[in-house]
Amino acid sequence: MLIHDDARAALIAARRPPAAALDAVLAALAARFGDRFSRNRSVLDQHGHTRTQIRLEAPDGVVFPNTTAEVAEIVRLCAGHRVPVIPYGTGTSLEGHVNAPFGGISIDTARMDRVLAVHAEDLDCVVEPGVTRKALNAHLRHHGLFFPVDPGADASLGGMVATRASGTGAVRYGTMKDNVLALEIVTPQGEVMQTARRAKKSSAGYDLTRLMVGSEGTLGVITGITLKLSGLPEATAAGVCPFPSVKAACDATILTIQSGIPVARIELLDEAQVRASNTYSRLGLPEVPTLFVEFTGSPASVAEQVESFGAIAGELGGGPFDWATQPEDRSRLWQARHDAYWASLTLRPGAQIISTDLCVPISRLADCVTETQADIADSGLVAPIVGHVGDGNFHLGVLFDDTDAGETARVEAFLDRLVRRALRMEGTCTGEHGVGQGKAGYLKDEHPPAALAMMAAVKRAIDPLDIMNPGKILPMG
Amino acid sequence: MLIHDDARAALIAARRPPAAALDAVLAALAARFGDRFSRNRSVLDQHGHTRTQIRLEAPDGVVFPNTTAEVAEIVRLCAGHRVPVIPYGTGTSLEGHVNAPFGGISIDTARMDRVLAVHAEDLDCVVEPGVTRKALNAHLRHHGLFFPVDPGADASLGGMVATRASGTGAVRYGTMKDNVLALEIVTPQGEVMQTARRAKKSSAGYDLTRLMVGSEGTLGVITGITLKLSGLPEATAAGVCPFPSVKAACDATILTIQSGIPVARIELLDEAQVRASNTYSRLGLPEVPTLFVEFTGSPASVAEQVESFGAIAGELGGGPFDWATQPEDRSRLWQARHDAYWASLTLRPGAQIISTDLCVPISRLADCVTETQADIADSGLVAPIVGHVGDGNFHLGVLFDDTDAGETARVEAFLDRLVRRALRMEGTCTGEHGVGQGKAGYLKDEHPPAALAMMAAVKRAIDPLDIMNPGKILPMG
Repeated sequence: MLIHDDARAALIAARRPPAAALDAVLAALAARFGDRFSRNRSVLDQHGHTRTQIRLEAPDGVVFPNTTAEVAEIVRLCAGHRVPVIPYGTGTSLEGHVNAPFGGISIDTARMDRVLAVHAEDLDCVVEPGVTRKALNAHLRHHGLFFPVDPGADASLGGMVATRASGTGAVRYGTMKDNVLALEIVTPQGEVMQTARRAKKSSAGYDLTRLMVGSEGTLGVITGITLKLSGLPEATAAGVCPFPSVKAACDATILTIQSGIPVARIELLDEAQVRASNTYSRLGLPEVPTLFVEFTGSPASVAEQVESFGAIAGELGGGPFDWATQPEDRSRLWQARHDAYWASLTLRPGAQIISTDLCVPISRLADCVTETQADIADSGLVAPIVGHVGDGNFHLGVLFDDTDAGETARVEAFLDRLVRRALRMEGTCTGEHGVGQGKAGYLKDEHPPAALAMMAAVKRAIDPLDIMNPGKILPMG
Repeated sequence: MLIHDDARAALIAARRPPAAALDAVLAALAARFGDRFSRNRSVLDQHGHTRTQIRLEAPDGVVFPNTTAEVAEIVRLCAGHRVPVIPYGTGTSLEGHVNAPFGGISIDTARMDRVLAVHAEDLDCVVEPGVTRKALNAHLRHHGLFFPVDPGADASLGGMVATRASGTGAVRYGTMKDNVLALEIVTPQGEVMQTARRAKKSSAGYDLTRLMVGSEGTLGVITGITLKLSGLPEATAAGVCPFPSVKAACDATILTIQSGIPVARIELLDEAQVRASNTYSRLGLPEVPTLFVEFTGSPASVAEQVESFGAIAGELGGGPFDWATQPEDRSRLWQARHDAYWASLTLRPGAQIISTDLCVPISRLADCVTETQADIADSGLVAPIVGHVGDGNFHLGVLFDDTDAGETARVEAFLDRLVRRALRMEGTCTGEHGVGQGKAGYLKDEHPPAALAMMAAVKRAIDPLDIMNPGKILPMG
């Protein structure tokens, strides 16, 4: 939860750059970048906007660099005046990552959208941070390759690195942590550096790449990304399988993974989410816990996976299957999964939504989801659940009337219990959305004091002026 | 290369703890740990010994803790007197990682050898750092699970974390970076902390786990490890395939990986290594570049992989295959691969050996190996090559007479060209052995100044007294 009180206001006032320093930066940027610099109100608001309940805190200016050298120039300018720098991709993050609580300059990387190299033999590519995952996959198609991390939104790859994004493909291909080979970074001092080379592995020193992945813009600006790629599979089968309970669906998932079936996607929709998706995406599914699954590989391997998974599902009372055999049907299925957020809004039109995510060891997933469903019912809330269940990761969209103080208080209490439940089950307060502002208060519950102190020491060591996306990840004050 | 001169001696003298401080620590450890503390000369020497050309620099004392609490106590004692702490696993590292250039206390984790938990449903386990990978796999067998990272030596898992080890299984299962979920660390201040929870993924703050993986004991002592596990495959096929050239073998590897064949191991032995292994392991193979391969999965998937790989190898002039169909034959095959180091010694009995490793993008591997073979011939050296070619990673064992100053100088010049060749090809000076002392001098060639400065800043932030394995990774002085 955010601190929305006098203490927060005092912290913010104390940390904002002096007006003269800010004015100097704004004037210099206007002179240097012309129409690639904006102080237009709607542009500012759009760059702090995070599509969630978190209060808008807009930056003071937005600049649209074309090159790494320009980013370095902007960062040096801001560092010289101790003005905050907030890197911006597509603004699809959910925890207030792009907000500017202390004001400052938003660096929008949208124009840095070139795919610089595709090394098909090495299964890697080099991109600028503003390339979105859909744009990259369109570019890669004729190479027979694809980039497998798919968080749903057409996020920028820079933003996906920054938030350690994952999504439906992570059960098979891993998260951004597993799919970034190297990064080009503009440091908080405005120097340009490469974190690693293009070799597939290295033991040559501290893993600065992984330190930057998930650092949410607090340790530098990502200006170049070397990504691992995967070969487009020869064959694909996707389908939908209803289950008698969340537990049966989770148990089927555990058995699938334990059996070494290389499932490409395995997604749980609970009863409420199926109802919502039926309405929004016209699926016509039975309103019971349901797994959306996808298998890829050679035709023989896919046939074998389908058969093995079918046997597992059958043992647990799942079925009958509905297979999407045509590419259009598969696209419709995954579009429906990706539209779960929009679909959930139909359950309570006009309501505010808080989208949150948790992750627990998979053995605890059924318990965690089932207890959470009971808590939702007891709290009188509407909150459909979808999950990347192969990773033990699930999402809730809590729909509520934010003008109703009583309901808002019940939602806050529910969200607090939700995080504590996941932590009690050896889980994490966020599997893939990141900390931003929204989860910063929970880090002290998740990590021991020595680990939080180590994170703070690393932050101070790399960004001693605290200009890089201040107020994110580490709790304020 | 190490600095073996007066400058180094001066640095060492300046950095050694005062005699009184060291004596206080030694006396306290003797009183507290009794026969679990040793100053016996052969024990000291064994704990600095690294099986390589790097000069022995023994610690002043060796302590064998049983618990994390004891490790914390030792570190606090050493920190109080600014005496260096060198974590020790099995001493199988190759770059002087366990040497004690400034003296200090070696913490031998051999007694911390318990498997604390196996969570079969979650495919993970929790172990103490002294558990070796073979001991873990013996423990796991009845669960139908295994730990797939296999560097050859029966290394301790703590040491494997510390050096970011990988090996033959990395092409399929990744390196230690990809197989560690969380760590328990004793910080340089002697505090105990967990870097992460047991959830399969998290976006909750900086990735301290990955920061510790590969940090070579310079940021803390690893006292607990949560590892990802994999299901034992149903079927396995392994075989040997000769090729007309290194390039043909590398091209077959590239095509295999591009085709998405989930090869479990793919190892290159060059002509010289095949000759050595024929002698040592009685393989009777044709003395040409050869791939050792292994495929695992369901019986149908293995059959399909074998067929696809056979077609690729055939296209590139490889074959005929020699398949090891019996488990004993497979064991003999992989034992021979793991014995490559010992086998190479047969090429020049009595010679000194330097074992080194490099890694380049796989598209450059054939060039890198071929140029290196020409350089070996031109330099009049004996240096067989083996490689985890699926990762672009290869090893050389350079055999030479270290009493011959001329030959030693030629070896040093050759090793220098070797690293520069890999770096020129966008590679790294070490794919898996680590930096230790042996490669510390090359970090400035591999990383830009800003990245090295960032590593140094992180080190200072976490270990401001510089007591954790000083003189490793970052260049001395």
